[in-house]
Amino acid sequence: MQRIALRRMLEQFYMEDIGSGDLSAQLMSDVGERQAVIHAKQSGIVAGMDIIREAFALLDQEIRVSLLKKDGDAVTQGETLAILTGKASTLLTGERVVLNLLQRMSGIATATRQAIETLNDSSIRVCDTRKTTPGLRMLEKYAVTAGGGYNHRFGLYDGIMIKDNHIAAEGSITAAVAKARQQMGHMVKIEVEIEDEEQLHEAIAADADIIMFDNCGPETVRRFAQITPPHIITEASGGINMQTLADYAGTGVHYLSLGFLTHSVTSLDISMDIRFADELGPTSER
Amino acid sequence: MQRIALRRMLEQFYMEDIGSGDLSAQLMSDVGERQAVIHAKQSGIVAGMDIIREAFALLDQEIRVSLLKKDGDAVTQGETLAILTGKASTLLTGERVVLNLLQRMSGIATATRQAIETLNDSSIRVCDTRKTTPGLRMLEKYAVTAGGGYNHRFGLYDGIMIKDNHIAAEGSITAAVAKARQQMGHMVKIEVEIEDEEQLHEAIAADADIIMFDNCGPETVRRFAQITPPHIITEASGGINMQTLADYAGTGVHYLSLGFLTHSVTSLDISMDIRFADELGPTSER
Amino acid sequence: MQRIALRRMLEQFYMEDIGSGDLSAQLMSDVGERQAVIHAKQSGIVAGMDIIREAFALLDQEIRVSLLKKDGDAVTQGETLAILTGKASTLLTGERVVLNLLQRMSGIATATRQAIETLNDSSIRVCDTRKTTPGLRMLEKYAVTAGGGYNHRFGLYDGIMIKDNHIAAEGSITAAVAKARQQMGHMVKIEVEIEDEEQLHEAIAADADIIMFDNCGPETVRRFAQITPPHIITEASGGINMQTLADYAGTGVHYLSLGFLTHSVTSLDISMDIRFADELGPTSER
Amino acid sequence: MQRIALRRMLEQFYMEDIGSGDLSAQLMSDVGERQAVIHAKQSGIVAGMDIIREAFALLDQEIRVSLLKKDGDAVTQGETLAILTGKASTLLTGERVVLNLLQRMSGIATATRQAIETLNDSSIRVCDTRKTTPGLRMLEKYAVTAGGGYNHRFGLYDGIMIKDNHIAAEGSITAAVAKARQQMGHMVKIEVEIEDEEQLHEAIAADADIIMFDNCGPETVRRFAQITPPHIITEASGGINMQTLADYAGTGVHYLSLGFLTHSVTSLDISMDIRFADELGPTSER
Amino acid sequence: MQRIALRRMLEQFYMEDIGSGDLSAQLMSDVGERQAVIHAKQSGIVAGMDIIREAFALLDQEIRVSLLKKDGDAVTQGETLAILTGKASTLLTGERVVLNLLQRMSGIATATRQAIETLNDSSIRVCDTRKTTPGLRMLEKYAVTAGGGYNHRFGLYDGIMIKDNHIAAEGSITAAVAKARQQMGHMVKIEVEIEDEEQLHEAIAADADIIMFDNCGPETVRRFAQITPPHIITEASGGINMQTLADYAGTGVHYLSLGFLTHSVTSLDISMDIRFADELGPTSER
Amino acid sequence: MQRIALRRMLEQFYMEDIGSGDLSAQLMSDVGERQAVIHAKQSGIVAGMDIIREAFALLDQEIRVSLLKKDGDAVTQGETLAILTGKASTLLTGERVVLNLLQRMSGIATATRQAIETLNDSSIRVCDTRKTTPGLRMLEKYAVTAGGGYNHRFGLYDGIMIKDNHIAAEGSITAAVAKARQQMGHMVKIEVEIEDEEQLHEAIAADADIIMFDNCGPETVRRFAQITPPHIITEASGGINMQTLADYAGTGVHYLSLGFLTHSVTSLDISMDIRFADELGPTSER
Repeated sequence: MQRIALRRMLEQFYMEDIGSGDLSAQLMSDVGERQAVIHAKQSGIVAGMDIIREAFALLDQEIRVSLLKKDGDAVTQGETLAILTGKASTLLTGERVVLNLLQRMSGIATATRQAIETLNDSSIRVCDTRKTTPGLRMLEKYAVTAGGGYNHRFGLYDGIMIKDNHIAAEGSITAAVAKARQQMGHMVKIEVEIEDEEQLHEAIAADADIIMFDNCGPETVRRFAQITPPHIITEASGGINMQTLADYAGTGVHYLSLGFLTHSVTSLDISMDIRFADELGPTSER
Repeated sequence: MQRIALRRMLEQFYMEDIGSGDLSAQLMSDVGERQAVIHAKQSGIVAGMDIIREAFALLDQEIRVSLLKKDGDAVTQGETLAILTGKASTLLTGERVVLNLLQRMSGIATATRQAIETLNDSSIRVCDTRKTTPGLRMLEKYAVTAGGGYNHRFGLYDGIMIKDNHIAAEGSITAAVAKARQQMGHMVKIEVEIEDEEQLHEAIAADADIIMFDNCGPETVRRFAQITPPHIITEASGGINMQTLADYAGTGVHYLSLGFLTHSVTSLDISMDIRFADELGPTSER
Repeated sequence: MQRIALRRMLEQFYMEDIGSGDLSAQLMSDVGERQAVIHAKQSGIVAGMDIIREAFALLDQEIRVSLLKKDGDAVTQGETLAILTGKASTLLTGERVVLNLLQRMSGIATATRQAIETLNDSSIRVCDTRKTTPGLRMLEKYAVTAGGGYNHRFGLYDGIMIKDNHIAAEGSITAAVAKARQQMGHMVKIEVEIEDEEQLHEAIAADADIIMFDNCGPETVRRFAQITPPHIITEASGGINMQTLADYAGTGVHYLSLGFLTHSVTSLDISMDIRFADELGPTSER
Repeated sequence: MQRIALRRMLEQFYMEDIGSGDLSAQLMSDVGERQAVIHAKQSGIVAGMDIIREAFALLDQEIRVSLLKKDGDAVTQGETLAILTGKASTLLTGERVVLNLLQRMSGIATATRQAIETLNDSSIRVCDTRKTTPGLRMLEKYAVTAGGGYNHRFGLYDGIMIKDNHIAAEGSITAAVAKARQQMGHMVKIEVEIEDEEQLHEAIAADADIIMFDNCGPETVRRFAQITPPHIITEASGGINMQTLADYAGTGVHYLSLGFLTHSVTSLDISMDIRFADELGPTSER
Repeated sequence: MQRIALRRMLEQFYMEDIGSGDLSAQLMSDVGERQAVIHAKQSGIVAGMDIIREAFALLDQEIRVSLLKKDGDAVTQGETLAILTGKASTLLTGERVVLNLLQRMSGIATATRQAIETLNDSSIRVCDTRKTTPGLRMLEKYAVTAGGGYNHRFGLYDGIMIKDNHIAAEGSITAAVAKARQQMGHMVKIEVEIEDEEQLHEAIAADADIIMFDNCGPETVRRFAQITPPHIITEASGGINMQTLADYAGTGVHYLSLGFLTHSVTSLDISMDIRFADELGPTSER
Repeated sequence: MQRIALRRMLEQFYMEDIGSGDLSAQLMSDVGERQAVIHAKQSGIVAGMDIIREAFALLDQEIRVSLLKKDGDAVTQGETLAILTGKASTLLTGERVVLNLLQRMSGIATATRQAIETLNDSSIRVCDTRKTTPGLRMLEKYAVTAGGGYNHRFGLYDGIMIKDNHIAAEGSITAAVAKARQQMGHMVKIEVEIEDEEQLHEAIAADADIIMFDNCGPETVRRFAQITPPHIITEASGGINMQTLADYAGTGVHYLSLGFLTHSVTSLDISMDIRFADELGPTSER
């Protein structure tokens, strides 16, 4: 992950949570060093481990962080992800932001992995959309890759999507693609969203880089994928959920883009326990 | 909602999505004015309507926005939430950030309303936690209230929570509450998290403002609520989900704080369609 | 103090003072290491000692800082607060921002301590208001606590104050408090500002958490405090200054909130001297 | 005042005060338009009137502001400074930041005017120092000019001050001034701080642009001013307060720089009252 | 251009130039409205016209701006680009930032147009690089398109460039491209930089999207372009300047990327004159 | 250079270039440590060496930087400026921003040195203008001094320039200078721009600190410089370029301000090569 961007985000998130100060931490007598153990309370895929280190470093450079898992690792309930050692009050102050991010990102990675397994067709790639949480796109798209998925464009700035309104404005897919080729440089991919076979043929003739089958059921996707020449990448999107995903196996489409990976996240349950030094027996073996 | 904060957030979110420019919008021929209709594709509770106006105003002050619903309104599938009129390319550029926020906030409002209805005990209030999406706390906590719920503290800065680690550090609940009373001003509420009856009695004796029953089942909650004198507010938290919620009806506790309202959001499906001027007949009736 | 917030403030303050560069420091030949001694030129209470370390760390991580006093300590004229060692030009560049903050915060802490001593009634707490310098609220409220005072709410976001305009809008204190109880969660304290005995009785009946006697003289405060039941916290505010403060001793009110602590600050005179290494004899004894 | 800078400051100050939202304003029923009257509760010089308009415009562009005084005007107790008309809750939300700034700036302008009158020698100018509140330098230096004073340098970036440490590093005043002339461009003034007559003669010989007599009493200032040739500007600083100021009349020095104008501010008492429409009779005559 | 980003940049640039205030403008008596005429003192291509309107709107919403040229227009010496009407002091305060940007962007557009004309081969596109001025990439890349050129990738985030170090790390071009295809989603173009024919054949076999001939002379470029199959885009870069550009005509390469367009800019001479109202006769004809 | 400002700028520039992440670096297998050698591909004057250390420290605190040249040093083609050791992918990610700044600043330093040598009159100083790249003024003005030139004012805030519009507004140069002296403090220099001899005499009589001869040829400059008494600093500006510069030698003017130093920069060609450890033989000798 991009560290300058990550540091800025974490600073902003701590400003949101701590504001003018952690009142409860101010109360707390200094009780020396503690160990905080971050562990999974649910099985899943973890994502965002680097955040633990960067986040606590912003609060207190004396906190020592030992990461026992890496992004993309499958963890089972009860497994330890990381051990932190340092001042007890800082561990408590920093906990919530770290868990909120880690749980959310791991939830996305877990859903992505689950989608891939549900689909069960390694020739089809699962990817994300722009339906991410505003402010967290970098983190959420990273979590999709940690789960084994792929990233669609990051924003409006790094790829062309020609949709119905663009087609209407230019008069035809042919005209819209020609205009894009005429105006855009060679680093920009041009994707056309189509809704029916007539549009598909037009998009193929226009030689779009990518054709997206919008809101087509699995059978139509299969047929459209067969019609499309192999040098054009195909993508299906719209109305695909964890229940219908398996129906797209074997359709031959290259990509399935799934909004639910990021717009409706179920956090992975991860928590942090703080222990006294003399309770650390088992941990010290790790 | 706080407008200066909202404007800053929206600016940041558009910077994330548009970056150096909307490549697809740059392609688009100017086709005059269009109407964009934002409508619900699912029934639920809407939240975040003001965002529509503020967001598009950042992009283009010529966009006219007509809001047909207000926050907290129940909408049914197909209902129109807002109508926007303006330059087609701006409507397309601004769409995603607005929908991402509106769907997420309406998802939270809907879940909150559903929780309240599931609980079906108007003497118990449903409230949120600090398990919100980093960067969106103001918006997510607002969405909880739009759904009929209440806000717990906003951050570490506006309320004291005395938990196990604080108790351990000070030696006892009694000592921890006394210290809080000694150090904190009169605008700060002091909440104590307890896990068993012994702790409950100690918290009552210490005269905490609020006592939270942590991870206790409904029967324990009922018993603890009866034990606690009426001038102390009671709260149950931990392990309560949409399935177990109804079990807490009639327990007499004052608040149930529910992390899932914000940590695991299912977006409400809301979309935006753009229409040509001559398609606008039926809209004008609304 | 919240370190992320503090660092951001210090960065902003140095940008204001140094701008595109310290012209005088650029002139200066490198003369090796120097010691800078920060000492009090007046007796008082110090506040803001951590700022010394954080501020110079932003400019040059080689500066070594030794703090000889801690926040809340009483110092007498001539006493050394801190000794810094490092590059002479950096010590000069960093001096003014540190002293401006330290003097101002120590001025507030000193005034707070003086107010407490003047009042001479340990059953009454002295607290601040929102009449702080814009941009410095966190620091100024911290300084009040360093002087032995208490913090009223930090902003409009962490406590309810029902004043005349709210009462007029809702029709009565009773209605306004009921509405606040209805809409606000359990972490929010509700304070009602009253001006006469009729209002006091209404506020008591409404069971406000805190009742503030606005602009009442000491005799009225004493009478109102006696009328108010003990479970409601009382506060007097308005028109109390260092001259009239002692008159409130023995009134039985719980809090006196004093705007002058922060709106009219007399800095504590603190200065920094830079010495050559061979002049350091007496310092090494400290 | 620089409007972009002012707007940024006001945004920051409102974020500090309002945070995630004004809880009390959220409670308030909409009661239609109100008038808010800002008036002086004390006689003095006002400064910062433009802030009223800019600040409320950030919160609500429907607020109408009518300014009855301009910066530098003398006001007497009870005089109205401005009348605002708009939504009652916005008027309440915006009040504190505006008053905190206006009171502080007017306090500085008033102290400046008072210093000038106390000095009672129109041939000597009163100016400020860098002992301003961090974050508010632009506003506080502006307030000094509103009171009739002058600005010393704005920061370390727009003028050279050669002090004892610079002299020690370069070996002599002569060497330090020569180096400054050699290295600095023609837009930079070079001021030398001197402590005794020997240094004064050296600074004159070095042809400093400005010579500052540091911590010299009035008699010494008079003598040094006579010694200094007229084309060199003279300044006295250090240890001058409202009590000793008059002693410097007739000394012939050009500038007195007074740290207390900004480091120890007594706010001018200014308040805002909100009135119902039918109470507005007398106001409409103004 | 992206308006939110542009506004943020302009705010930053005015903060840099105006700082705490325009001293000269503060001096100036109010002389009523003036017209400012921005005109070319040199022939060339203009770029950045929208900046004029956005920039002055930040300073004063009363300034009226009439744009007589649009981006990409060729202008000749003496032609008027825009006429502004408003307060004289604001026109002066805002002038320098606007001209600095307009001159620089027009210089880039002019150089781009000149490069295209010098090359004189409409089958080859001229594009930019990442050798832009830090902080101005959006504006400079926009200026290249205004001059008729194309944009290469905007940053490290929106396209893959496989260079010698990547090849060395992965062992071969084949391995590096395969890894990129394996890890990257379908919106990302993969460009391989090659230095000799052996590498070219490997890049073709690996089916790179784009092959860049690095530092090859025109003859080698011609040969490599012939070897490369037509579905792969070719680009030449390195060591091409205005003198050697024409040698690349007819080579059959698709793109020439030219660092000098942005790393070594000669501003187009544009200036602003302010006139009194009675001098405005001839302008009204324009 | 001011380090806090520099760090903020570098963070912004890396955000611009890296955005959500360096896609090519993400691909790259970890190949252990590498050395990156920054060397000149052209002779010239270097400026901005400190940027190398600060920039890479933002990305990775493990990068070790050894600087072999210092700002203002003349380098010849092929000379090594700095050697960096660290993770290969970080070296690649950080390269472009550093080179873009270093090349541009060294281009400015080189042009400045060349201007001084072309002028060949050590009694005349070469200085810059406000025609700098928006956002980079601090860096570009620093580069001018590294090349041996001087800085004119940094912005509108640190010096008065009385130009034709100010003169027209006040009625005369005499009135404008008198007003400036009346209103401005003693740290502000007052420069008057004149166009003919009549204005020159008026500016001399008004005792301006600096008189600028605007757009006068060398003969006029010589004559005006002789007329002006020696205690007033003289400056010539307007229409002076590398071709006409030598004509101003011997004119007796004190300063020549040259817009082209910063508005039309030719970068100095500097590049960075990354080497394997076993290729490091010759470097280790340095």
